[in-house]
Amino acid sequence: MTGSLSIVGIGLYDEQDISLRGLAEAKKADVIYLELYTSLMPAFSKESLEHLIGKKVIVVSRSDLEEDADTGILKTAHNLNVCLLIPGDPFVATTHISLRIAAEKLGIPTKVIHAASIISAIPGATGLQSYKFGRSVSVPFPRGEFFSETPYSVIRENRIRGLHTMVLLDLDVEVPRLMSIREALSILLKLEEEHGDGVVEEETLAIGIARIGSLDVEIQAGEVRELVGHNFGSPPHVLIFLGDLHFLEKEALEVFANLSDKAC
Amino acid sequence: MTGSLSIVGIGLYDEQDISLRGLAEAKKADVIYLELYTSLMPAFSKESLEHLIGKKVIVVSRSDLEEDADTGILKTAHNLNVCLLIPGDPFVATTHISLRIAAEKLGIPTKVIHAASIISAIPGATGLQSYKFGRSVSVPFPRGEFFSETPYSVIRENRIRGLHTMVLLDLDVEVPRLMSIREALSILLKLEEEHGDGVVEEETLAIGIARIGSLDVEIQAGEVRELVGHNFGSPPHVLIFLGDLHFLEKEALEVFANLSDKAC
Repeated sequence: MTGSLSIVGIGLYDEQDISLRGLAEAKKADVIYLELYTSLMPAFSKESLEHLIGKKVIVVSRSDLEEDADTGILKTAHNLNVCLLIPGDPFVATTHISLRIAAEKLGIPTKVIHAASIISAIPGATGLQSYKFGRSVSVPFPRGEFFSETPYSVIRENRIRGLHTMVLLDLDVEVPRLMSIREALSILLKLEEEHGDGVVEEETLAIGIARIGSLDVEIQAGEVRELVGHNFGSPPHVLIFLGDLHFLEKEALEVFANLSDKAC
Repeated sequence: MTGSLSIVGIGLYDEQDISLRGLAEAKKADVIYLELYTSLMPAFSKESLEHLIGKKVIVVSRSDLEEDADTGILKTAHNLNVCLLIPGDPFVATTHISLRIAAEKLGIPTKVIHAASIISAIPGATGLQSYKFGRSVSVPFPRGEFFSETPYSVIRENRIRGLHTMVLLDLDVEVPRLMSIREALSILLKLEEEHGDGVVEEETLAIGIARIGSLDVEIQAGEVRELVGHNFGSPPHVLIFLGDLHFLEKEALEVFANLSDKAC
């Protein structure tokens, strides 16, 4: 067996977010796969990426990386050097972890090349301090009448400890649909109605962020009712609920997120 | 005023971690500054970076970015396009947030270009799920007889909620000294002696990571007493204390961190 699997993050916004190391890795590979279903890169162009690498890039689906991996990508990686390109930084999605575990168990050497990720970009773009974030959480699309209570309880748990919460919004690239800040807030307000713990009320201060990593990133702080009405433009969208604000964080939000100095 | 300030992350390991977007930004700049004191990039070479950019790069100190910023970098950014290169992803360090706030208040347009960060690389490299991390914490060098209790209390708080803790280790590039996993564990064991809450004991399972982002990254799971004796090689080092493990996380640690399946 002479193959290998390199998993390379390609960042947040477009094909220019790949690192020099990642690009070199792709150029060396015998086969290049690209996964675009775990998150959306707003301005990404497969053609431009192929032009940069100088090779064809094959787009793979969820089933290619999951149930069909053994007969597909992993089979290929037995004898060829395979490069799998992934939005953001690899492995924030469990599907990639499972694939890498499967490869190592088959004796296929694996390698990870990191890139910009929403997880570190959010503190950076807002000026909120990374060590003041509690666990992050996602708001899934409701299944029929069922709303997951997890986002509500995680925001509450973090708030009690004075910590911020990064709230990622669901996406279903195959439909395609991406949850907007407005949809997410309406789900959280419904959960507030059910639980009534004062976690996400009309007056609760939050921050909405759209297209982070792009040059037209939109960052707006305000009460939930204001953010519901704010036009954030095209996706992807992210929300932050705030814990206790350090004075430097407050100052940063005033400058970068139009936080009014009366707000807190 | 015609100047600007672009703050560009250059990643974790060496000059190859910069993104294509970041490199293009540096090439466009009139003046390029480089900060190397907030974290260590093990294989970074200023000369190789200058070769990539095709321009001179000026290394700046903490005082250049803090007390002397108004008369230095910010003065320059009034009329020239300034690019400030920073290890990791910008703004995990507060000094950069303050600088960006000061620039915006002076009417200097600012821009951020993200890169790989320890914060997202750690879940990626270990297979631990990012949404299962509580707040992260740093272990500072003791000042004389004083040991900060914060790392101990943060690990305890996260453990109680079943969450993992990313423990960053102090560095003082000007001395230079970087805290090793062994030093950090001995500090945490001292805090355990004082508090006795069973947070960091000889038998506590933890993960040590060295040189993340490099091709010789070292990831070792084991009891604290084992990690104290383990040779992790050159810095930087990071520690993780574990919350409840999902079966997929356990499997990942067995494959990527030599976790013995008896360990948990």
